[in-house]
Amino acid sequence: MSTIVVEVMPKAELLDPQGKAVVGALSRLGHTAINDVRVGKRFEITVDGEVTDAVLDDVRTIATEILSNQVIEDVVGIHVADGVDA
Amino acid sequence: MSTIVVEVMPKAELLDPQGKAVVGALSRLGHTAINDVRVGKRFEITVDGEVTDAVLDDVRTIATEILSNQVIEDVVGIHVADGVDA
Repeated sequence: MSTIVVEVMPKAELLDPQGKAVVGALSRLGHTAINDVRVGKRFEITVDGEVTDAVLDDVRTIATEILSNQVIEDVVGIHVADGVDA
Repeated sequence: MSTIVVEVMPKAELLDPQGKAVVGALSRLGHTAINDVRVGKRFEITVDGEVTDAVLDDVRTIATEILSNQVIEDVVGIHVADGVDA
């Protein structure tokens, strides 16, 4: 079994209300060194056997078509856990 | 400005309903190579200036006390973006 990590973040140019809420809470709690926070999603996808190119292509398709909304989000990373960037 | 990435995942021993829903959808869409999916959160924290040890300690505290619920989640990674693991 192998694990592939997919990382999805809101597009940089979009307002991130969740992130703004976290920044507000952090400054109220005294963490003033924090300038900005953006909140995204992290998926751990487990597949049987080794991660072949075909499996990676499938995961890339899944990442862009299913795990992220390409209108408001970007897939910022796909890598094999404890491995090199895919 | 520097960016620190914090990665939070549901504890391994807990059922991840979101993940199960994604696996179900993927198999219905023909992506049968996928064995399991777990869904977590990815935070990008921007701080002014360089990332000092003090800033990293602050971010670790923030990660465990504010950005994750230690009853059901684990902080699985904190690293400076495009940098080494913190």
